[in-house]
Amino acid sequence: QIFNASQEVLAKVSANATRQQKLNNYWQGRKLLITAGPTHEAIDPVRFIGNRSSGKMGFAIAEAAAKAGAQVTLIAGPVSLKSSPDIERVDVRSAEQMFAAVKEHYQQQDCFIGAAAVADYRVKEAANEKIKKQDGVDELTLELVKNPDIIQWVAAQKDKPFVVGFAAETNNLIGYAKDKLARKNLDMICANLVGESLGFEAQDNQLTFITNNKVEENPLSDKQDQALALLAFIAGNN
Amino acid sequence: QIFNASQEVLAKVSANATRQQKLNNYWQGRKLLITAGPTHEAIDPVRFIGNRSSGKMGFAIAEAAAKAGAQVTLIAGPVSLKSSPDIERVDVRSAEQMFAAVKEHYQQQDCFIGAAAVADYRVKEAANEKIKKQDGVDELTLELVKNPDIIQWVAAQKDKPFVVGFAAETNNLIGYAKDKLARKNLDMICANLVGESLGFEAQDNQLTFITNNKVEENPLSDKQDQALALLAFIAGNN
Repeated sequence: QIFNASQEVLAKVSANATRQQKLNNYWQGRKLLITAGPTHEAIDPVRFIGNRSSGKMGFAIAEAAAKAGAQVTLIAGPVSLKSSPDIERVDVRSAEQMFAAVKEHYQQQDCFIGAAAVADYRVKEAANEKIKKQDGVDELTLELVKNPDIIQWVAAQKDKPFVVGFAAETNNLIGYAKDKLARKNLDMICANLVGESLGFEAQDNQLTFITNNKVEENPLSDKQDQALALLAFIAGNN
Repeated sequence: QIFNASQEVLAKVSANATRQQKLNNYWQGRKLLITAGPTHEAIDPVRFIGNRSSGKMGFAIAEAAAKAGAQVTLIAGPVSLKSSPDIERVDVRSAEQMFAAVKEHYQQQDCFIGAAAVADYRVKEAANEKIKKQDGVDELTLELVKNPDIIQWVAAQKDKPFVVGFAAETNNLIGYAKDKLARKNLDMICANLVGESLGFEAQDNQLTFITNNKVEENPLSDKQDQALALLAFIAGNN
């Protein structure tokens, strides 16, 4: 039994080493631009519209790619996560700031992964001072306007890198994801069911990798493992 | 010179010990209920309206009070901060959940500190599924309704504890704070200028303590030190 257990451990160590070697073969020296985290759209200096993205999935991909030898530029929304010193990091808050940073960095990249949960809408006119609650005013209307679609913009550039998007959905996951892949002209999309214990704010995740001619469902695991599977899938499809 | 330096160190150690002893004399065995952090008001399962409160000020007060021997109940909005095991912690997300937790715990407390940045408004009808961005729809209107005023409710109870509020403002700080103290019938308010490097999301803070007959401005320092000064001020005014 001890012999079997150690055989298993050895087999796992060997499988991990093989996987890492394969990742290194592809990613070594390649350039990856990745966005991660939420964006915060200001209502006033203290209030904002946000979303539940923790940034963990995007940061896990950035770290795994850097470990495999890629030159990683990480454009991060407001999160409290740390990143390795060998990752070039640009911190932003709003979708418009994230778009500006992507425009500045997208050229000469081999791959762009849009893992950030970019707000679809921002407040039409954010207030410069904190909005005071007014007595007697029980209702308030917030007017929103559409934000630029960052990943669609990248995918529309002539000199575009390999573009990977995410679709985080609470229902009709694969349907919405395939629609997004086609509509935005992405090279690949990672479909990501979000709910109570999955995706946003969770440690574990289950991504389905979709290209024009493939659908590959990855088993549930932690975000570090999903990141390795994602990078391996890109390597196998390029 | 070495002698002077060690004299200074000794004086500081001695001053800190005296301050801690004074805090213990008042807070030992007293019951403190404190709210901290932001609230998140759901727009749909992934989007919300939030604010920039990090929860650090409220958590610092809770920890300092527990260290001084108080029985602390901490009602925390969505933050990634840890708290000591001797603090009874209730985690909530929305203003309505925070209100329910306060109603459940406010009785038989000696002091209530409302350090949370409770959202003034919530979304009138939050969606059960993620709202899809629609092509051609460039504007969106979000209808908000007023949230319950938690601290005003506590201050209006017959069996109310000593009630301490916060006023985080970007302008006209003391004016707004005094108005809030009177309007909500609080026993004390901590006025808190928020801006780029102060208050929300910052390590340092500068509170001004205001009661009906006192205004005491505390010098700028870290939130741990502000917490001690706040607890000392309460001790000196009860």
